[in-house]
Amino acid sequence: MSTSPADHAAVDPAIAARLPELREQYAALQARDLSLDLTRGKPSAEQLDLSEPLLALPGEGRHTSAAGTDVRNYGGLDGLPELREIFAELLGVPVDQLLAQDNASLRLMYDSVVQAMLFGVPGGEGPWSQQGEITFVCPVPGYDRHFAICEELGIRMVTVPMTPEGPDVDAVAELVAHDPSVKGMWAVPTYANPDGSVITEDVARRLVSMPTAAPDFRIFWDNAYAVHHLTEHETPTADAIGLAAEAGDPDRVLMFASTSKVTFAGAGVSFFASSPANVAWFKQHLAFRSIGPDKVNQLRHAAFFGDADGVRAHMAKHREILAPKFRAVVEILTDRLGDTGVATWTEPAGGYFVSVDVVPGTASRVVQLAQEAGIKLTPAGATFPYGEDPRNANIRLAPSMPPLEEVRVAMDGVATCMLLAAAEAASA
Amino acid sequence: MSTSPADHAAVDPAIAARLPELREQYAALQARDLSLDLTRGKPSAEQLDLSEPLLALPGEGRHTSAAGTDVRNYGGLDGLPELREIFAELLGVPVDQLLAQDNASLRLMYDSVVQAMLFGVPGGEGPWSQQGEITFVCPVPGYDRHFAICEELGIRMVTVPMTPEGPDVDAVAELVAHDPSVKGMWAVPTYANPDGSVITEDVARRLVSMPTAAPDFRIFWDNAYAVHHLTEHETPTADAIGLAAEAGDPDRVLMFASTSKVTFAGAGVSFFASSPANVAWFKQHLAFRSIGPDKVNQLRHAAFFGDADGVRAHMAKHREILAPKFRAVVEILTDRLGDTGVATWTEPAGGYFVSVDVVPGTASRVVQLAQEAGIKLTPAGATFPYGEDPRNANIRLAPSMPPLEEVRVAMDGVATCMLLAAAEAASA
Repeated sequence: MSTSPADHAAVDPAIAARLPELREQYAALQARDLSLDLTRGKPSAEQLDLSEPLLALPGEGRHTSAAGTDVRNYGGLDGLPELREIFAELLGVPVDQLLAQDNASLRLMYDSVVQAMLFGVPGGEGPWSQQGEITFVCPVPGYDRHFAICEELGIRMVTVPMTPEGPDVDAVAELVAHDPSVKGMWAVPTYANPDGSVITEDVARRLVSMPTAAPDFRIFWDNAYAVHHLTEHETPTADAIGLAAEAGDPDRVLMFASTSKVTFAGAGVSFFASSPANVAWFKQHLAFRSIGPDKVNQLRHAAFFGDADGVRAHMAKHREILAPKFRAVVEILTDRLGDTGVATWTEPAGGYFVSVDVVPGTASRVVQLAQEAGIKLTPAGATFPYGEDPRNANIRLAPSMPPLEEVRVAMDGVATCMLLAAAEAASA
Repeated sequence: MSTSPADHAAVDPAIAARLPELREQYAALQARDLSLDLTRGKPSAEQLDLSEPLLALPGEGRHTSAAGTDVRNYGGLDGLPELREIFAELLGVPVDQLLAQDNASLRLMYDSVVQAMLFGVPGGEGPWSQQGEITFVCPVPGYDRHFAICEELGIRMVTVPMTPEGPDVDAVAELVAHDPSVKGMWAVPTYANPDGSVITEDVARRLVSMPTAAPDFRIFWDNAYAVHHLTEHETPTADAIGLAAEAGDPDRVLMFASTSKVTFAGAGVSFFASSPANVAWFKQHLAFRSIGPDKVNQLRHAAFFGDADGVRAHMAKHREILAPKFRAVVEILTDRLGDTGVATWTEPAGGYFVSVDVVPGTASRVVQLAQEAGIKLTPAGATFPYGEDPRNANIRLAPSMPPLEEVRVAMDGVATCMLLAAAEAASA
């Protein structure tokens, strides 16, 4: 069943005949009076407990960095060197091209796009906001908060389909080649939200070397799930920053990451990595809005992890909690829908989501049916710009937050809703 | 000697005759090979030690807010209610009009101005950036980082003088009355940076009720030193938000504050307060760049303080450390310069600075002389937009960081430099 959601199988016409039976199943589901939530990629309490020692770190009397600075005071715009060293290794970037900042990379992405709009970027021709319409390439399905940033800032979005190897690079290359308004592109290179795909080195190489009409085209490389493996195989992220430098356009890639799904979702540390010119550009403007990040939290994290292997060992504990939930999602989808053609889904090797394509036209109905049976799903369309999925087919499932048994119950209910919606559509 | 720097006394002409003696004093000062720093308003290590328990808080197992939410996870854009309650009392604002955010109010001020530029403000006519030139009123001497935000965003700055009761409100009223490009104004209401003045209720009332040509004029009310008293008299801050509502322009005031100089300068919590409409406006855009602030740090702070009286008791400990340093600055200036007319200075009852006006034309020479004697001072002009003090007279002294004995040594040296620069000028 590990197929791309884009290749939708034919629906078994026999599904229409199952309508009465499915209505009964659904009535029984509603009668259970459930209250379950698969909406957002939040870590569970059990996962958060893995980082509980952070709540007493760094500990009284421990407030000095390895370099001897008092982390309690102002300053240190780049972030704490010992923490940057740990994540430079994990993210595969030189430490002097990596900044450590405050909780949440969303903030860094927003700030980067705003900086480009207000001030322009290295190698560009001034503020993007003064160059007429600005366009971003948005691979779909994708992350709703990326699209929301574009919408907030008045940036036009054009979509390209995702493939198991990342964004459809031919489609991207075509869009950026002739239209100088195309200044940016979103990408989640490893275990993408929501389809779990991983950008291969070949695709990454093409993305950083394809000719662009805009001289200052930027890829916003949201490496949110770099170390978030669901199997023992730790898929490496393509080294887009290094490949861009090799390709002669070193400033093309801005990388973002955080520990939001490593330690605490609301109290982690974030990272910005790019070429030396882009790092200098980011810092130049950062200096007007910050005197320095929360270095105490950075020391806390460095003390907790120790080194990059400490992060790897910590992520293995997350995997032990998460992998059974993802297996349950796939097992139940396979059991209930496997031979019906009613849906296709991803089997991610990492990240936080399973992406399902149901019968075109029925995604919003599935979400409604689930809602009315006490199972909250991410709104249909959320994985597309403006919340509009033109095929009304994609649904993002987020099984990390509920306990395993609830995931099973919720997914069985969701399968019933998917079947019922398909039967309704086939009978209409 | 508690005179306003604006009223400069006449220089004693006898100062010229002291040139040889002062040159000898200065040579002796240089021979001491000092390395002292009075440049920035940073808390000392002794002050930071007062908050050392924070480094082990909230403690393992303590991760739930009073309302029962898990502070380790995403969400809670407004900030933790129990922390907002403590600071709502201290800042004199309703708790539902107060947001608690991450470390540093500079970030909130920058974001507020950027939001106004990109999206406009309630009651306005669209984005400020699309309305031609935008002007801010800047009381001088003032805070360099306020001016830097304007410079970064291309906002024109016009200055008004400070008085012991806050900005010269007649001058402000004149500037805002006729020019619709005047959209904003900076103000530090309590213990202003650098002159220590406190905006009286009368001045506050005039600032919030004066007619403005712009329908969407905003006062950026940087309440950085609200609880930072240097005497036992806890001067209250004028309730600008309440007064603005009374005056019929509830949206005129945006208040900012933080614990940067209460707990840790680099790891505190910040606050935004305003009218309900402005709070909604701030949050509407905040939601695109943040899923929520660091609630663990907010719980840590709430646990540390307990309640508003906990903050007051904590600030009394800061006062015990700081007050002797400020007394030393004033004593030495009085002893060395009291009868010479070479300088006037403030005697602040709170905050972090002493503002000195030296003989016009000599401020930059004083800073240079001090630098060459191993005493770093804030660059002359730093308290003015673009770093340009038209009288070249103002110097900001920041005695918080060095130990008391170093403050004494540095200030004695600074007095020598002020006298020598005056003698040089009188002899030229």
